[in-house]
Amino acid sequence: MPRFFMEHIDPASPRVVITGRDAEHIKVLRMRLGETFTVCDGNGTELLCTLTQSDGKTVYADVLEVRPVTSESTVPVHIYAGLAKGDRVDYVVQKCTELGAHDITFFHSERCIVRLDPKKSADAKLARLQRISEEAAKQSGRGIIPRVGYLDDYKGMLREAAQSQLKLFLYETGDRVSLQSAIRAVAPVQSAAVITGPEGGFTPEEAEAAREAGFAVCAMGPRILRCETAPLIPLTAILYETGNLD
Amino acid sequence: MPRFFMEHIDPASPRVVITGRDAEHIKVLRMRLGETFTVCDGNGTELLCTLTQSDGKTVYADVLEVRPVTSESTVPVHIYAGLAKGDRVDYVVQKCTELGAHDITFFHSERCIVRLDPKKSADAKLARLQRISEEAAKQSGRGIIPRVGYLDDYKGMLREAAQSQLKLFLYETGDRVSLQSAIRAVAPVQSAAVITGPEGGFTPEEAEAAREAGFAVCAMGPRILRCETAPLIPLTAILYETGNLD
Repeated sequence: MPRFFMEHIDPASPRVVITGRDAEHIKVLRMRLGETFTVCDGNGTELLCTLTQSDGKTVYADVLEVRPVTSESTVPVHIYAGLAKGDRVDYVVQKCTELGAHDITFFHSERCIVRLDPKKSADAKLARLQRISEEAAKQSGRGIIPRVGYLDDYKGMLREAAQSQLKLFLYETGDRVSLQSAIRAVAPVQSAAVITGPEGGFTPEEAEAAREAGFAVCAMGPRILRCETAPLIPLTAILYETGNLD
Repeated sequence: MPRFFMEHIDPASPRVVITGRDAEHIKVLRMRLGETFTVCDGNGTELLCTLTQSDGKTVYADVLEVRPVTSESTVPVHIYAGLAKGDRVDYVVQKCTELGAHDITFFHSERCIVRLDPKKSADAKLARLQRISEEAAKQSGRGIIPRVGYLDDYKGMLREAAQSQLKLFLYETGDRVSLQSAIRAVAPVQSAAVITGPEGGFTPEEAEAAREAGFAVCAMGPRILRCETAPLIPLTAILYETGNLD
C-alpha cells in the first residue's frame, strides 16, 4: 500500500489534502478513486485513507482510520558512518532506513577520501540523501523519516554518539570485543549508537579516542566488509537481540 | 592485501604461477616486485605470496607461508532466494558472499516476474553471478567462492534446503515465529538454510509447503524489506547468534 509522510496532520479531520511531489507521485502510480494508502505524520501516528478526488496537482482523501504506527524499533539505533565516495552513502541511507535505524549521520575522519564543505556542497548532498531516506521510509512502512546529517568534526561526533547507552565502535584490528558480548553487556538496551569507518578505516588514534569516550571497540567477524555494508551488521544484530525483528 | 583463488595449489611447491584474468588483474593493480598477496585454494588453505616476476600475462610468486583459512563461518548458511529482476540478484550475491554465506541458490516460485530458461539464459546469467561471487570473495577474504545456482522447481528447492538442520522460511504475513526464537530453538546450530521470496512474495500455498517440509515460518520485524535486502537479515542473525561475527 502506498505511503506518504505529512508533517502536519490533524487527526481530528475527516479529510486530508495532498499537494506537491506526493500528489504527483499518486498520479504516477495511477491510483484510482477508492484506492487506499497511508499518510504518516512522522511522529507515531498514521492515517488510513481512501482517494476521493484528484486533479493531478491536488489530491483529496477521506480518513478511514487513525492509528498508532507499530513499525518503529523500541530501541533507537543511531548510525554514524565515515563519509564514503559516490553511491556508497546512498546505499547506507537506503538500507539503514529500510532496516530500522533512527537516524544516519556521516562524519569526517582522517582517512576519509571525500569531505563535505558545510558552506557549499553539504546542503545539496544532504538534501539528496534525505530524499533517499524518505523514499526508503515510505517503501518500508516506517513511522519516521530517519534524519540524515553530517558532522565535520570527529571528536564532536564522538561526543554526540556517546550520549547513547550502548556504544559500539566497529574496528578491523587490534584489541576488540565481540559484537555479541558488547551488546549483551548492556541489557536491556535502551538506545544505541554504532560507529563505522570510511573506505580506509580508522587510525589507531581515532579508535583510542572512541575507547576513551566509552565505546566498546568491536569486531564484526573475520571477513572484510565494505564500508557501505558495515553499518548493517551491528544494526541488524542490535534489532535482533532486542526483539525488534519479531 | 589482494587475494586470488586457484583451484589447484600444491602446498609443497615454493612457487606459484598465475595466468589469465588474475595475472591481468595484478597488472591493473600495478603491483610491484616484492609486494605480497594471498592465493586461496577455495578449500581451506591459503598461501601468502610475494611477487617475483611478471610480464603482464604470467605472474611468478614465491610462497612465504602456507596457512589454514580462518575467515569461514563454522556454520554453513545456505541462501535460497526467489529470482528477482535486474541487479537485485547481483546485490544478493555480492552482499551474501561478503557477509559469509556458504552458497546462494535462486529459485522459481509462483510470483516471480522473471524466470531463467535452463536451456538458454541460465548458464550465461549464472556465470555472471558466479564472477560477482568470486570478486566479493576476494575482496572480503573468504576461504571459498560461494557457488551460485538456480532451481526451476520450487518443491525440489524445498527438498534440497530441508537437508539443513536450521530451516528458516521468511514470510511477511500470517502465523509466524520470531527469527530469534526459531534460531534459538536449534542449538547448537550445525547448518542452516534460509529461504526468502521474490518481489511479490510467496503464495499461502508455498508457505504451507515450506511448513510441511519442516521449515520454521518466520517474521523479520514489522518493516517491509526489499527482496534483495531480506536474505541479509537472517544470515546476519545466524552468524551473530552462532558466534561467527566475533
